[in-house]
Amino acid sequence: MSHSSFYEPRSKVTVVGSGNWGSVAAKLIASNTVRLSSFDDEVRMWVFEEKLPSGEKLTDVINRTNENVKYLPGIKLGKNVVADPDVESAEGISLVKGMEVKKEGPCMISTLISKTLGINCSVLMGANIANEIALEKFSEATVGYSKNKEAAEKWVQLFGTPYFIVSAVQDVEGVEMCGTLKNIVAIAAGFVDGMEMGNNTKAAIMRIGLKEMIKFSKMLFPSVKDSTFFESCGVADLITTCLGGRNRKVADAYAKNQGKRSFDQLEAELLNGQKLQGVLTAKEVYEVLSDRGWVEQFPLFSTVHAISIGRLPPSAIVELGDSRSANKQVGNSTL
Amino acid sequence: MSHSSFYEPRSKVTVVGSGNWGSVAAKLIASNTVRLSSFDDEVRMWVFEEKLPSGEKLTDVINRTNENVKYLPGIKLGKNVVADPDVESAEGISLVKGMEVKKEGPCMISTLISKTLGINCSVLMGANIANEIALEKFSEATVGYSKNKEAAEKWVQLFGTPYFIVSAVQDVEGVEMCGTLKNIVAIAAGFVDGMEMGNNTKAAIMRIGLKEMIKFSKMLFPSVKDSTFFESCGVADLITTCLGGRNRKVADAYAKNQGKRSFDQLEAELLNGQKLQGVLTAKEVYEVLSDRGWVEQFPLFSTVHAISIGRLPPSAIVELGDSRSANKQVGNSTL
Repeated sequence: MSHSSFYEPRSKVTVVGSGNWGSVAAKLIASNTVRLSSFDDEVRMWVFEEKLPSGEKLTDVINRTNENVKYLPGIKLGKNVVADPDVESAEGISLVKGMEVKKEGPCMISTLISKTLGINCSVLMGANIANEIALEKFSEATVGYSKNKEAAEKWVQLFGTPYFIVSAVQDVEGVEMCGTLKNIVAIAAGFVDGMEMGNNTKAAIMRIGLKEMIKFSKMLFPSVKDSTFFESCGVADLITTCLGGRNRKVADAYAKNQGKRSFDQLEAELLNGQKLQGVLTAKEVYEVLSDRGWVEQFPLFSTVHAISIGRLPPSAIVELGDSRSANKQVGNSTL
Repeated sequence: MSHSSFYEPRSKVTVVGSGNWGSVAAKLIASNTVRLSSFDDEVRMWVFEEKLPSGEKLTDVINRTNENVKYLPGIKLGKNVVADPDVESAEGISLVKGMEVKKEGPCMISTLISKTLGINCSVLMGANIANEIALEKFSEATVGYSKNKEAAEKWVQLFGTPYFIVSAVQDVEGVEMCGTLKNIVAIAAGFVDGMEMGNNTKAAIMRIGLKEMIKFSKMLFPSVKDSTFFESCGVADLITTCLGGRNRKVADAYAKNQGKRSFDQLEAELLNGQKLQGVLTAKEVYEVLSDRGWVEQFPLFSTVHAISIGRLPPSAIVELGDSRSANKQVGNSTL
């Protein structure tokens, strides 16, 4: 929100980023600013300028057609959305899922934004497949905030629609960790799918993954709350990601090929060069676990990493039962 | 366990029931009694006697072939399983999923057993598709107990195997409620599938359902714990049931037919005359909600009921956002 004081009437909203999800966010928000008197109708969407094959600038086309023809074609954004290359802010919210997990702990995107811009930064996460929300299919999201409850309530007002239900929780770290760690669990779920072990096993693996997500988040940030994982950012996003999603898909293919083709090969074939978040996150999380002597407490996270680098076969994902030995195997190796 | 004193060495175990799931339970337990010194090797499986088309008695064939040829063909039960028509007990565990929910509250199966036989009764629930466990695919279960922790630990020892991980929680009501209420959520998930609304929406509906499961259980039994819903009986069983399962399947067909064919018709066609647990449970739960003035607090449960009796269209399941009016609609009708 780009006003010098957040609580002044008629705050102006700028969406920073204009990809698939950023454009949907602008559409959601624009439908609300026109009916909420505390916001200026106009929503600025910051667009990284590029030239289209036609020779026109992307911002010009968006402003002429009211569609992001490149990243969200066929969807009207709302006439009050204006593409713009400038940013200024006072109160921020990050919609970026995923963050770097370094040895010192995770590098939270919201913290980065907060420090870089010198502003408060909340996050919005949840079971959010941008294209489904663009088509106004029912779904939910969670706003995580740290201190400013009133700002969080404004975000809820701004994003919420009858088909997009938003709730706020005071747990920015918990909400943001969910968005990252779920990808490790999706890799595990993909292995189970690839081995055709059935829904029973898949549900068990998802549950164990959820428990490790909670435990890891709480060990890094003692303020993280269990209840956050019952929100959309927790269990619902986990389910969506383990049912569809590219992490699950590539891990499925990996297990079907019995590990004979590497993740790198499969990524290149199946994802048009996009990188798999889950494999990277598993590696980064493993480094934290290893560094802090926590490996044995996280058999699923550790095993996903060991499988993804070819140290263990995909079938190891369902041998967590004998977790002591499984952990040992991972713990003693030089992963 | 059929010994006069539970803590005597070499307790004898009897499995009461010999259907699909009962037979798998006998197989699991028999693999453990042979290696645990505190149990008699022999596991009695109480079989409701019937004559097979060959003219032989079912018990005779089970004891000759070591297979329950009628309800779990092709799976060896273990040589120490003996089919038997007699029962006697000292400490019990119920594997029955589902219970009657009456206006006075739910009639828990474990309570029934406890009162009828004058014994303690724990429950075992979880993401347990009997045939998948029979094939030794990895899965998990939860033992819910009320007071006797040592008995619970014995059940964990008895049922647990490297591919069937069992944990115990002191929350018999919570565990048993999970097994019933998940079927209402599966109906809702089936509606979403039938309308082809995507994984996003499905995950959101499952999450809202999970929250209502927790809330309803706690309102009926204040001792119920949030953490129980992170166990296999909670989130994992919910996932399995919403991915596969007959409640989901029939609700999917109902929505695909836009409610033009009744649940009764679809049940008859798709389930060979078996009854849909979820529709009955939704009705029973609605009666409790209505009786206690709780309808507005449970929009998903109420809406599933309203849809299943044709009062609302299947699309109403994703109109919980405007929950006040949705509830009103249900609350004011004479369902």
